[in-house]
Amino acid sequence: MRAVDIIAHKRDGGALDRDAIAAFVEGAARGTWPDYQLAALLMAIVLRGMDAEETWALTEAMRDSGDRVDLSDVAGTTVGKHSTGGVGDKVSIIAAPLAAACGVVVPKMSGRGLGHTGGTLDKLESIPGFRIHLDVAEFKAILRDVGTCIIGQTASLAPADKALYALRDVTATTESLPLVASSVMSKKLAEGSSALVLDVKCGDGALVRERPVARRLAQTMVDIGRRAGVRTEALVTAMDAPLGRAVGNALEVAECLDVLEGGGPADVRDVAARVAGRMLVLGGVASGDAAAAEQVARVLASGAARERLARMVERQGGDPRVLDDRSRLPRAPSVQVLPAPHDGFVTATQARPIGRATVALGAGRAEAGDRIDHAVGVVLQARVGDRVSRGQPLVELHHREGRGLDEALALCRQACAIGGVPPPPGPLLLDEVR
Amino acid sequence: MRAVDIIAHKRDGGALDRDAIAAFVEGAARGTWPDYQLAALLMAIVLRGMDAEETWALTEAMRDSGDRVDLSDVAGTTVGKHSTGGVGDKVSIIAAPLAAACGVVVPKMSGRGLGHTGGTLDKLESIPGFRIHLDVAEFKAILRDVGTCIIGQTASLAPADKALYALRDVTATTESLPLVASSVMSKKLAEGSSALVLDVKCGDGALVRERPVARRLAQTMVDIGRRAGVRTEALVTAMDAPLGRAVGNALEVAECLDVLEGGGPADVRDVAARVAGRMLVLGGVASGDAAAAEQVARVLASGAARERLARMVERQGGDPRVLDDRSRLPRAPSVQVLPAPHDGFVTATQARPIGRATVALGAGRAEAGDRIDHAVGVVLQARVGDRVSRGQPLVELHHREGRGLDEALALCRQACAIGGVPPPPGPLLLDEVR
Repeated sequence: MRAVDIIAHKRDGGALDRDAIAAFVEGAARGTWPDYQLAALLMAIVLRGMDAEETWALTEAMRDSGDRVDLSDVAGTTVGKHSTGGVGDKVSIIAAPLAAACGVVVPKMSGRGLGHTGGTLDKLESIPGFRIHLDVAEFKAILRDVGTCIIGQTASLAPADKALYALRDVTATTESLPLVASSVMSKKLAEGSSALVLDVKCGDGALVRERPVARRLAQTMVDIGRRAGVRTEALVTAMDAPLGRAVGNALEVAECLDVLEGGGPADVRDVAARVAGRMLVLGGVASGDAAAAEQVARVLASGAARERLARMVERQGGDPRVLDDRSRLPRAPSVQVLPAPHDGFVTATQARPIGRATVALGAGRAEAGDRIDHAVGVVLQARVGDRVSRGQPLVELHHREGRGLDEALALCRQACAIGGVPPPPGPLLLDEVR
Repeated sequence: MRAVDIIAHKRDGGALDRDAIAAFVEGAARGTWPDYQLAALLMAIVLRGMDAEETWALTEAMRDSGDRVDLSDVAGTTVGKHSTGGVGDKVSIIAAPLAAACGVVVPKMSGRGLGHTGGTLDKLESIPGFRIHLDVAEFKAILRDVGTCIIGQTASLAPADKALYALRDVTATTESLPLVASSVMSKKLAEGSSALVLDVKCGDGALVRERPVARRLAQTMVDIGRRAGVRTEALVTAMDAPLGRAVGNALEVAECLDVLEGGGPADVRDVAARVAGRMLVLGGVASGDAAAAEQVARVLASGAARERLARMVERQGGDPRVLDDRSRLPRAPSVQVLPAPHDGFVTATQARPIGRATVALGAGRAEAGDRIDHAVGVVLQARVGDRVSRGQPLVELHHREGRGLDEALALCRQACAIGGVPPPPGPLLLDEVR
């Protein structure tokens, strides 16, 4: 079957069969299809869609385009966790050690930040010495000893997805439900966990803004997981404002430590506890939400979760003294404050411009391969619903010698709205697919 | 404006402004956009469309991406002619000398055959010695002396269209009304005629099968021509069956000579006379259809049109003895006959499979750059509406040592249908845009 015939079939709204999808995925993984044919088919998929059968076939073919991690020789129930990405989303760094401290094994392969969203790997690398490139043997050894380990995806994992992901980024073909779902799930299934909790972010700072679309994305990924024999659930959580106060790599690690020490912002605590709770239920160590919540609260209070993170950091080469002495984290030399322009209530702190502000300061990447500054970022001093007086700090901008400061200030100004009445509190958990 | 933002805008159904279209066309002409971004935007255009303003801007930008032919120093009114392509469509080789003999100047840049359709250049090259690569000075000299000249498009003519056309062919993005219209018209406008008659083919063997779509394509091209200040009209003519009996390069040249000598199939004569007639009206040498028809008939009968072709062939290096001695045209060594399987009336001789049969025999190209055999092809011995007896020849296949013969026979068998009653005669002229 010629590439051009496969493209024409999707262009005309047809469903691709397994052979056509296999040819496409092999074309991407081995470079036997030129990029322009891949790009044409990607755009046709964005505009014509894919049904459940096609999406599953695409996921399976991408999963099988490279190595799969075999975790059968790691004792215990392995439960993965994945977020579709947001601003200030530091949940993995809390939920992974938390669930591990409760008795499930949490193997986690993460990505880097791109665009306005951050990445777990970048955040962890703000801990001096932390290594994210481990081979599978070391990954499994740490999982056996500590119960959790967070590394970067190996190059041999779903190479077809890697090729297509890079192409999607430069051809405006990222925003497609079947392409997003199959991209995420091909990697997650190749990682070898026996269960999986997905956190689908929804709102201004997320890939998906509309709740029904987020619900469909969640359902699609859950369906794929189940077809693959992996117990999969999804939460849909709010991403109109950043999660927590801190956005920026080292600043977010510090906020994670706050939560693991029993403090931190309520929204971060809440999402981390819900995600960890479902991991416990899927992992078979809690009978339901109530039991899981109780166990999570106990393990947080006892310091056992923080202790797990400390052990993981140490085993992955990070400086464990960071946990007791935050000043060992990279710290930006200067802080500029954005003051409230008038009295009122904060009605919005939009996630997307705030994410872009941190990128401008150097905390993120405009393009893959850009170097980042782990120290810089922003801290929200006032959050949605807070009463503020004129001149009171709204946002702290942690910058290095003014780099990107003007742009970041303008973006933060654009992100923050102050009105005469407090907005009604919005829910954090928007939906669930169990 | 970044390429990815332009692609995203069209993906979401937006209209592209002149700056965006200029960036795209320059990206194609100069290679500053990678092919995968061009391909993604092409597919988005195929599926989202373009409005009249965008289509005009695209045409203008492609026209201006290279040289434009200046015909102001050629005396007389220049009238171009273009067909969207079909099977057995040899009209240009008749209409150009015919109109020239009536007093308009007919400069014509043609294309080669690709896929199941033939190309005027390939047909003319079956005349031994015929040169299609002339520079503009020689082209104009022949126009001045003979009144018509048919050559290949120069490399510097609409280079953006050349780049996009090649890419469209391999990315299943050929079938798009704005892309077809802007591709055709960018070249025709760069060729510099002051008026233009378009023959939009419609049916099984054409790019467009549905009459309303053909009408829209015709109207779109006419609108573009008029915006550019070129008097433009279009005929929509039937292409369900091949035009005439002969399909294949030298076989078609022989049929053209039949028509120019007052014979030949009625459908070829009719379309050529209608096209030439409108060329005379647009060129100002006939007052209307009736006067034009009368003039065309007179010039055909007098042999003046044949005489023009003879002079053009000679000036372009072709052997003029071909006109008096058809045996000097390439001739296939063998002929196989497909007999009628039973008595009845021919109800169909589908153009597309017959076109594909001639490609199988070697008369056309599966890919640009393939060599072709000018001698081979098919001749329809029975046409739609004819009564046939079992065993009577339906199709003659002119082949070289059996090359492609089995495939061609199967395709011809598939193309020909014989039923119990004669089909109602279908019109040849389906529509007109004046």
